[in-house]
Amino acid sequence: MLTTNPFETLDGDKLREECGIFGIWGADNAAGFVALGLHALQHRGQEAAGITSYDGAHFHSHRAMGHVAGNFDRDDVMRKLPGRAAIGHVRYSTTGETALRNVQPLYAELNDGGFAVGHNGNLSNAMKLRRTLNRRGSIFQSTSDTEVIIHLVATSQAASPTDRLIDALKQVEGAYSLVVLTEQGLIACRDPLGIRPLVMGKLGEATIFASETVALDVIGASFIRDLDPGELVIVNGSGLRSFRPFEKASARPCIFEHVYFSRPDSIVDGTSVYEVRKNIGAELSREAPVQVDLVVPVPDSGVPAAIGYSQESGIPFELGIIRSHYVGRTFIQPSQEVRHLGVKLKHNANSALIRGKSIVLIDDSIVRGTTSVKIVQMMRDAGAREVHMRIASPPTKYSCFYGVDTPERAKLLAAQMSIEAMRDYINADSLAFISIDGLYRALGQDRDPNAPQRCDACFTGDYPTRLTDLAESDPDASLALVAAR
Amino acid sequence: MLTTNPFETLDGDKLREECGIFGIWGADNAAGFVALGLHALQHRGQEAAGITSYDGAHFHSHRAMGHVAGNFDRDDVMRKLPGRAAIGHVRYSTTGETALRNVQPLYAELNDGGFAVGHNGNLSNAMKLRRTLNRRGSIFQSTSDTEVIIHLVATSQAASPTDRLIDALKQVEGAYSLVVLTEQGLIACRDPLGIRPLVMGKLGEATIFASETVALDVIGASFIRDLDPGELVIVNGSGLRSFRPFEKASARPCIFEHVYFSRPDSIVDGTSVYEVRKNIGAELSREAPVQVDLVVPVPDSGVPAAIGYSQESGIPFELGIIRSHYVGRTFIQPSQEVRHLGVKLKHNANSALIRGKSIVLIDDSIVRGTTSVKIVQMMRDAGAREVHMRIASPPTKYSCFYGVDTPERAKLLAAQMSIEAMRDYINADSLAFISIDGLYRALGQDRDPNAPQRCDACFTGDYPTRLTDLAESDPDASLALVAAR
Amino acid sequence: MLTTNPFETLDGDKLREECGIFGIWGADNAAGFVALGLHALQHRGQEAAGITSYDGAHFHSHRAMGHVAGNFDRDDVMRKLPGRAAIGHVRYSTTGETALRNVQPLYAELNDGGFAVGHNGNLSNAMKLRRTLNRRGSIFQSTSDTEVIIHLVATSQAASPTDRLIDALKQVEGAYSLVVLTEQGLIACRDPLGIRPLVMGKLGEATIFASETVALDVIGASFIRDLDPGELVIVNGSGLRSFRPFEKASARPCIFEHVYFSRPDSIVDGTSVYEVRKNIGAELSREAPVQVDLVVPVPDSGVPAAIGYSQESGIPFELGIIRSHYVGRTFIQPSQEVRHLGVKLKHNANSALIRGKSIVLIDDSIVRGTTSVKIVQMMRDAGAREVHMRIASPPTKYSCFYGVDTPERAKLLAAQMSIEAMRDYINADSLAFISIDGLYRALGQDRDPNAPQRCDACFTGDYPTRLTDLAESDPDASLALVAAR
Amino acid sequence: MLTTNPFETLDGDKLREECGIFGIWGADNAAGFVALGLHALQHRGQEAAGITSYDGAHFHSHRAMGHVAGNFDRDDVMRKLPGRAAIGHVRYSTTGETALRNVQPLYAELNDGGFAVGHNGNLSNAMKLRRTLNRRGSIFQSTSDTEVIIHLVATSQAASPTDRLIDALKQVEGAYSLVVLTEQGLIACRDPLGIRPLVMGKLGEATIFASETVALDVIGASFIRDLDPGELVIVNGSGLRSFRPFEKASARPCIFEHVYFSRPDSIVDGTSVYEVRKNIGAELSREAPVQVDLVVPVPDSGVPAAIGYSQESGIPFELGIIRSHYVGRTFIQPSQEVRHLGVKLKHNANSALIRGKSIVLIDDSIVRGTTSVKIVQMMRDAGAREVHMRIASPPTKYSCFYGVDTPERAKLLAAQMSIEAMRDYINADSLAFISIDGLYRALGQDRDPNAPQRCDACFTGDYPTRLTDLAESDPDASLALVAAR
Repeated sequence: MLTTNPFETLDGDKLREECGIFGIWGADNAAGFVALGLHALQHRGQEAAGITSYDGAHFHSHRAMGHVAGNFDRDDVMRKLPGRAAIGHVRYSTTGETALRNVQPLYAELNDGGFAVGHNGNLSNAMKLRRTLNRRGSIFQSTSDTEVIIHLVATSQAASPTDRLIDALKQVEGAYSLVVLTEQGLIACRDPLGIRPLVMGKLGEATIFASETVALDVIGASFIRDLDPGELVIVNGSGLRSFRPFEKASARPCIFEHVYFSRPDSIVDGTSVYEVRKNIGAELSREAPVQVDLVVPVPDSGVPAAIGYSQESGIPFELGIIRSHYVGRTFIQPSQEVRHLGVKLKHNANSALIRGKSIVLIDDSIVRGTTSVKIVQMMRDAGAREVHMRIASPPTKYSCFYGVDTPERAKLLAAQMSIEAMRDYINADSLAFISIDGLYRALGQDRDPNAPQRCDACFTGDYPTRLTDLAESDPDASLALVAAR
Repeated sequence: MLTTNPFETLDGDKLREECGIFGIWGADNAAGFVALGLHALQHRGQEAAGITSYDGAHFHSHRAMGHVAGNFDRDDVMRKLPGRAAIGHVRYSTTGETALRNVQPLYAELNDGGFAVGHNGNLSNAMKLRRTLNRRGSIFQSTSDTEVIIHLVATSQAASPTDRLIDALKQVEGAYSLVVLTEQGLIACRDPLGIRPLVMGKLGEATIFASETVALDVIGASFIRDLDPGELVIVNGSGLRSFRPFEKASARPCIFEHVYFSRPDSIVDGTSVYEVRKNIGAELSREAPVQVDLVVPVPDSGVPAAIGYSQESGIPFELGIIRSHYVGRTFIQPSQEVRHLGVKLKHNANSALIRGKSIVLIDDSIVRGTTSVKIVQMMRDAGAREVHMRIASPPTKYSCFYGVDTPERAKLLAAQMSIEAMRDYINADSLAFISIDGLYRALGQDRDPNAPQRCDACFTGDYPTRLTDLAESDPDASLALVAAR
Repeated sequence: MLTTNPFETLDGDKLREECGIFGIWGADNAAGFVALGLHALQHRGQEAAGITSYDGAHFHSHRAMGHVAGNFDRDDVMRKLPGRAAIGHVRYSTTGETALRNVQPLYAELNDGGFAVGHNGNLSNAMKLRRTLNRRGSIFQSTSDTEVIIHLVATSQAASPTDRLIDALKQVEGAYSLVVLTEQGLIACRDPLGIRPLVMGKLGEATIFASETVALDVIGASFIRDLDPGELVIVNGSGLRSFRPFEKASARPCIFEHVYFSRPDSIVDGTSVYEVRKNIGAELSREAPVQVDLVVPVPDSGVPAAIGYSQESGIPFELGIIRSHYVGRTFIQPSQEVRHLGVKLKHNANSALIRGKSIVLIDDSIVRGTTSVKIVQMMRDAGAREVHMRIASPPTKYSCFYGVDTPERAKLLAAQMSIEAMRDYINADSLAFISIDGLYRALGQDRDPNAPQRCDACFTGDYPTRLTDLAESDPDASLALVAAR
Repeated sequence: MLTTNPFETLDGDKLREECGIFGIWGADNAAGFVALGLHALQHRGQEAAGITSYDGAHFHSHRAMGHVAGNFDRDDVMRKLPGRAAIGHVRYSTTGETALRNVQPLYAELNDGGFAVGHNGNLSNAMKLRRTLNRRGSIFQSTSDTEVIIHLVATSQAASPTDRLIDALKQVEGAYSLVVLTEQGLIACRDPLGIRPLVMGKLGEATIFASETVALDVIGASFIRDLDPGELVIVNGSGLRSFRPFEKASARPCIFEHVYFSRPDSIVDGTSVYEVRKNIGAELSREAPVQVDLVVPVPDSGVPAAIGYSQESGIPFELGIIRSHYVGRTFIQPSQEVRHLGVKLKHNANSALIRGKSIVLIDDSIVRGTTSVKIVQMMRDAGAREVHMRIASPPTKYSCFYGVDTPERAKLLAAQMSIEAMRDYINADSLAFISIDGLYRALGQDRDPNAPQRCDACFTGDYPTRLTDLAESDPDASLALVAAR
């Protein structure tokens, strides 16, 4: 089973979105639509996938390690997921615990019926809530933060399932976009800051919720609108109702969705991801121009920004690096003579093109920097005369606690080094990142430093929520974060 | 296990190379190098893979359905393939018989020792030879044409293993590039016309043979030269000897390697595949210009030609179609509302870009035309104002009998329709193919119509060898082929 | 995987013990001993098995469908179960729900540490307790009655883990022998009536608890004593302490352990199972003599009683039925000509012996009677002149609610028919069952009808506990049981 | 998968029959009958099984490692084996090479059609024939001696398939009972000496061949007769024809079929196996009486002889050893304290019975003696006062070359020691074997020392055929065999 992310480099030197979610109410064979939607969201989580359906009488679940294709394209699996309502989830684990019991949707038989939940995001006070629940007798079956929500619902004394869910969500802090399947209807909800995305669509009579618009495209559904931050929608036989149960807050949607997580053909918060990435490339060309023969994208995520850079600068766009579509986990290196094997399995220099040329490489971000070192060296080995590097995001200096898999700060290259030191480390002739303001400009906004319109904490350290668990487990780290801003 | 070809569209609407081969003599852990080389050749055959090694005393084989990664990146597998010499093979089946017994390298314990062979190509008189061998008591274990070669070697009365192989090869007709592992050495051989490619490389003391140069790149080996058509090379402890045992003939290497089969970063017959494809795009722009807003490649194989078309015409190159990296076999369609599902799973329109624009799509070839119909419609659904199509190869009108998986002629769109009828069928505003002479020009050659420098039979019907099995099984088809030229 | 019980007939026409348990404290590689012990207890549950170990810091679990052999004789599995304390469980499911999540030991991370439990028996008020727990917010993950115990422990406000367990057990009714692994020690406990067996043994410094003495034999441990009904023992680094936390009650151990469940080489409640079965055979010969040529056991469970019958009567003991050791789940019947196939796959008549003879068949019990019909017919087809049948237990007229898989009453042959009607139904020349008093005599006891010394409810309907769940779900059935006595 | 033989002791201290065969012509769903027949013959080979069917147009094969149940009771497997004719095979390997390619039926596409063969026995000149065939160009795919037969048929110049088979069989020496499936009919054949058994049966219109009568019983077929030594029968649409193509020879059927291999409910060569074994026990009681309290069989193969011994001597028959039905491959021994673990997993002493008693153990044979040592010690550990041992066959002193898995002579206890030394080695109070003449008497025959009526080479060294391969590979061993007689 191929469980690696073909979008990422072999050594995992990328930030990784943790999850994608999809829910549908009111369509025959609802689980079939969920499978297709999850397949379109596969880039948001390749480690495991799950679907829960409700047939009006019973809930049915199937969860599996690995991709949607290979698991949810099998007749025998899909036949066991009947019903006109279903939700699904694709996931990464951030904890390293990749057991099946953590694969979502999580499901519990509550006092007033079945309750299944798929969660994109991460709660920043889950450990504290868990300890409290544990003390009063709740037994946890997974190590997932999402299970906290279920126990809070189970122990809530509110009257209706929806009220119990609201009761529960008022106790959590952090990022969550949720799809929840109950006997009373399909519920979708986005946290008060709208950190993670969630869109609503329609196909005939059916209502759909999904992390990205590409999941609507794949089933031919039309896009209705984004869910608002803090909005909770319930859809069932009586129609659709929208609630705003939380205190009003300024929205802070994740800016990295535009840089890397979302598919280029998605529309996120009303803007085309592809277009924003091209804008970033153009902005980068203006902010950090360079005289070279070729603009070369680091495939595949660097391609749109490279096209933008090429179009703005007039320097030809060329495929100087060819990417293999077939990547496995680890290959045994037969000998020491095989240098830089990891990166070569995935990327190969187009030497006939590169030889004797000066080039500018366009990549979306630098995390640990390990890949950049190898790519630059590969270009030099292929005979490039000069190798410049331009990055389509500001330096990534802070960890994310909202559902993105980031290394600890100590492993983020930009948290340890100046840009000049990074240039030296990756052995480039020049290195530049787009500025935080330039990034906002590519999105058509002027960044307000006192109240940023996005969550850009990974670049700025400006976290939009409290970080309760971090503060309790590691007060120093927590203080350091504040000091570092 | 993902056994589909990510390079091809979901319904298999491409010609498919049947095989890739790799052999190495004189390196510790030879099988490890073979695994890496086969991984780089994975695009030449995704159905199955196999490696045979020789440790000086015994032969060891492992063959498996599926990709190289997932099978030959496992410690337990690789530990069972010791030795300083090994050969490997990746394959498609053309017959639909995908049993493990057909997976190569084929191996036999002959009278004078073990004999393992990996074969890229196809014999056009295999059925006839098989019947003869059968009658004299040879028992076939596979349905592969390659097994004929082994039985011819086994029953040859020539003195040495090499002589017995030459004796066998003199009886076959068709296309073959071979790597053969024996106790006496590693043999590589290319048929007298050199229809399929085979290159030689060096890494330290080790000698390597491979279908494409990318397999040398991945292990850091240097490229020495192409094997000549009709050349047989044997390498062992005494060094390397080259033989030319066959009658001299004019070379006819397969032109389609440049159009589609080979990786863009390979050097085939001395020319860069990427550069030739860009040349084809430029040539196509000159032969069939069009006034549009955007040049859009059909990913991924259409990208280099689209870059060439864009650079020659000055029309911007844009990613109007986004390709998913995650494709499974077949998804159950939940309802009739889901139209064109197959293609959408793999390709999605970048609607925000396309809407209201006139575009020219660049694809490498049209085989059955089923994909083209869907892609054009997808562009129109996304709001394209005009959709033109340009194809980076001449119309594919004839089946290949030399190791490429082509449909029967009746299913080749260009064998059934005029270009205008094809344009109407795929519903494009205009359609043009590069001319056969233009294709040769992109390769830097003037095509000699009386003695073409390449095998271009799929476009012209000019087959460079007899087609004995076809003539015996279906004399009409055989005559029709001749008449059709 | 062979998941059938070789002791039982193909169509499941036997009562089935639901579980066997084993625990050990104070031995290196404790899980290895558990695996051996469970293997010796395999006859008590073939559907699934599990082991949980504790290494002083962490708990480790492996649970699997199928037999102990094939799962727990694998190095890779056993290496993941380190520690000097471990418990294990083999199980049948009675509900038909055979999912892995029901396989024991069940484990929960409680407020004061890990808690793993293996349970032999069945609670007769589990449904009622479950509803109450559900209402207060407890989320159940399995459908097993055993999980009720864990939630009662989790929500108990008692101070120590042992007190919380006692608190929980005081709320349950029914049958339970338990092994519980906590960070504070290994706990073993038998319900106040001692319905299911539990013995204690010693091997060097290690203390062992097991369902039967054969599990001590296999590891070379010595038998110390039976746990008393209502006794709770905790063993840890400080030694062994025994508690009697429940109200004193007269013991009522299950009499069917002697008839069928336990292995013949076990010592149950101080008496040899083999000897009791021979006594039953001898008693049966006195109660129901018959003049025949041969005594033929229905293998394998009828053998000891048949030896007793033969020795008492002087009629030769002969293997008239040969039993296959290889039985799979279901074989496809190729045609209607194959009659009585099910039973023939498992049993074959020794026709050369049987032909022309009068015989008495000795079987341990009649449940549905389906097997008896086939066995008698098989003997007649093989040429037996007369076929008499003697049963080593009284007629089975009542369902068991204490951890034995019995059909509903309507399917128990003896609940529906007189003995003469049963004789006619199975087509025997004569049929007799041992009397309930005769059965007690074979055990060396005089049955006290007002206070029976054993639980013999399956024969008499005299249930030793309340049946709360049955009374709530089906009051009529409950009343009928009382009336039927 | 349970691949051990429950009939044998854990350490393989038994001779093992290598194969069982079954064929049927003229029944719908023929493969279903073969599966049932092979299941009844499972004791003759537990390592692998295979079935080949013929549907009038094509041959279909499925071969698998492991038992018949678990492989051939699956719908998906059986649906792929259509037709009214089929053959099957269960096997041990003797060489240790247990690859699937050696699993029978072996199948080849010969010049005049498909040819499938199942073989019970072993050829004693296979290596020599193989070398010759190899030299003339035949390529072997398996390491099985049976493949020699196929190549001899393939290269024969005789006219009909039957004549080519006869031509081939005239060149082989050794033991063979064969079922052969061709397009012309089902052929069954027994070697000129009839060393291995083969019976013919009938079910409606269908004709059946099988190694033992129990395979007829299981499908309700009637027994017609044994095939004669040297007889070849072909059955097809035209009916049944019998040939005797070989030179007339005195029959020498294997005597060990009666001692151990065949099931007790089979009729071999006209005598009941169960009755012969009881006769052996009675004969043994007369030849080697002993004054003890109990007759105890070593289960299960010693049971019939023990009943005979008990009935003749009047000493009670008792189950002093209880055998587990659940045996896996190897259990990890948790510590040194666990002595004699291997044998205890399989056999447990019935200590309550044995303690303080004098007993005589009855076993069928002694091969290496390792099991006997453990069993005697187990009886002493359980408190037996005296332990005598009686063996239901003469001392096994010679290897078998006719399809029985025997250790090399050096490992046969009786080839190395006198009976008194063996008694001392296994630590019994007395030890006796039945005499070779006594064994023949139990079969109702007087042994003719100049022309024994059976193959009893394993006891006497009197081999009925030449041993060509042995003589060529190890002339000394061959001479030693002759000298040893």
